[in-house]
Amino acid sequence: MGPTVFELGEKKALAQALKVFKRVETTLVGSGDDAAVIALKDPRFVVTTDTLVENHDFTQTFSTGFDLGYKAVASNIADVVAMGARPIALTVAMVITKTTKQSWLDHFAQGLQKAIDELCPTAEIVGGDLASGTEIVVAVAAHGELLAEPVLRSGARAGDLVAVCGTLGQAAAGLALLQHPDATLAASYPELVDVQLRPNPPVELALSVAGSATAMMDISDSLALDASRLADASDVTLEIQSSQLFGYQAVLELAAQSITSRGQGEANELDWVLYGGEDHSFLTTFPPETQVPRGFKVIGKVIERGNASVLLDGSPLEAKGWDSVSS
Amino acid sequence: MGPTVFELGEKKALAQALKVFKRVETTLVGSGDDAAVIALKDPRFVVTTDTLVENHDFTQTFSTGFDLGYKAVASNIADVVAMGARPIALTVAMVITKTTKQSWLDHFAQGLQKAIDELCPTAEIVGGDLASGTEIVVAVAAHGELLAEPVLRSGARAGDLVAVCGTLGQAAAGLALLQHPDATLAASYPELVDVQLRPNPPVELALSVAGSATAMMDISDSLALDASRLADASDVTLEIQSSQLFGYQAVLELAAQSITSRGQGEANELDWVLYGGEDHSFLTTFPPETQVPRGFKVIGKVIERGNASVLLDGSPLEAKGWDSVSS
Repeated sequence: MGPTVFELGEKKALAQALKVFKRVETTLVGSGDDAAVIALKDPRFVVTTDTLVENHDFTQTFSTGFDLGYKAVASNIADVVAMGARPIALTVAMVITKTTKQSWLDHFAQGLQKAIDELCPTAEIVGGDLASGTEIVVAVAAHGELLAEPVLRSGARAGDLVAVCGTLGQAAAGLALLQHPDATLAASYPELVDVQLRPNPPVELALSVAGSATAMMDISDSLALDASRLADASDVTLEIQSSQLFGYQAVLELAAQSITSRGQGEANELDWVLYGGEDHSFLTTFPPETQVPRGFKVIGKVIERGNASVLLDGSPLEAKGWDSVSS
Repeated sequence: MGPTVFELGEKKALAQALKVFKRVETTLVGSGDDAAVIALKDPRFVVTTDTLVENHDFTQTFSTGFDLGYKAVASNIADVVAMGARPIALTVAMVITKTTKQSWLDHFAQGLQKAIDELCPTAEIVGGDLASGTEIVVAVAAHGELLAEPVLRSGARAGDLVAVCGTLGQAAAGLALLQHPDATLAASYPELVDVQLRPNPPVELALSVAGSATAMMDISDSLALDASRLADASDVTLEIQSSQLFGYQAVLELAAQSITSRGQGEANELDWVLYGGEDHSFLTTFPPETQVPRGFKVIGKVIERGNASVLLDGSPLEAKGWDSVSS
């Protein structure tokens, strides 16, 4: 497996890992100075930050260095895209341990670049920091350029259509499969496991509605929880029809049955769809008259604010999902 | 001491801590959406990231939450300023532990804002992330707006003057005092301890040379190590005169004597000046004819590249300092 990062020292370790990163033309000054300098067409930029912590957000049992790098990019750029902004630059602050291999760091860097290649080739890793600790931590800050006015969570209005772009529940199903004692289960549903390990937010589809959606957000913690946040920010209620979720459930049904039939706890595909996080799909609202673009699935509508943030078939939907501190 | 962050949950904990943050007018969309939106006068922005890890970069024995927040801002904005850019926005990604108190998080947030108030009141904490782990980690990304063309490490030319703006060795002396078994020592030199716990980079002075310095960098790891980096980036040699460092040594002399006289290891003030990091002062070069501004101390000059990156009184100076991975 070769030397640890500790044995090589920060300078050599970074020089080797950085080799895989590609340059983009908006980066005027890249890695290697005190800070990077990024060019914009519009004098506004979008910035967000998100953290992945070992044994909380991922484990080395399930995720390779490559997977983790991929996920770090995917989860962060989804927040940039949800504002209606095209990702252009990321910084990556990392804590590694005394035993982290250089080969792991190299794979991590390859995963970062692969996600950029596949999801947002206009972006570059423009800076980073490597520190030492007792568990691996990855903190990414992602930056984007607006394509129109920012699409906020607070823009939904009564009468708007509620739509989803991307998968729901697949990352949660993938996690349940990975965590099951019967290891053959995960191997049977690679497409679900892949969404958990290397989420694939539909970036171009989401960006295509930057001028037309009234609100948009990344579904990172769960449909139920994130829909409640959008509803609260917009001071409206979202009314979701369970019949519109059947398609999301259908692709999870076999996996849920496989888990349940093993007799070590039940799995339910509707729970995954409603309460599972990490698909990094997009929750959007459109004005009532909108011809919702292909790739967006209408799941309900926006109504005047009532007692509940979100209704499912008329009943309040509990805002359950991922809490990054207490989970 | 009140409840832990874990007991309160992410949402309430953040809502309470965020109360101390002040808004600035360049923040078009602040915390609370998927990402923040920042306005610039010039369609370029500067970004850097740096990490503080418990028991590597700080300990809770020496640093309060307030100190850590202050240092997180100071160390990051120094990198922005070293590019000739005015800090405007910061994101703060944090890992806290199951036992971290809400009161600690509140003090941390107060330290962040206090550093902004004192060092860079044009900046705002525009976003963050709170995660759970086994040790405290703070990863800040700092953003700035350029005042002129970026001041790079690579701009030094033979004949230029080498100057320093800010203190040298005081943070290292402060750390040695804090780490000494005799606790009365740290109490005797509060001004040195303060530089270690809450560094005070001379932001306005450094920004005042944004149009005139040929190169600039934040001295974070040591004068010797950072000077070698600037020399290598510019493909020149920096020639430093030890006689020009006497003033930096003078203010450390008594503290070094106090430590040495305790008989548990020797302290040397010149070592602190040359090899001590974390003062977050600025190393700059100016064209030969420049009237170096007040507050900048000329310590040598730039010569054609020789075998050594840095010479002290004509002899090669070892590039010793802080390595964030192996230290």
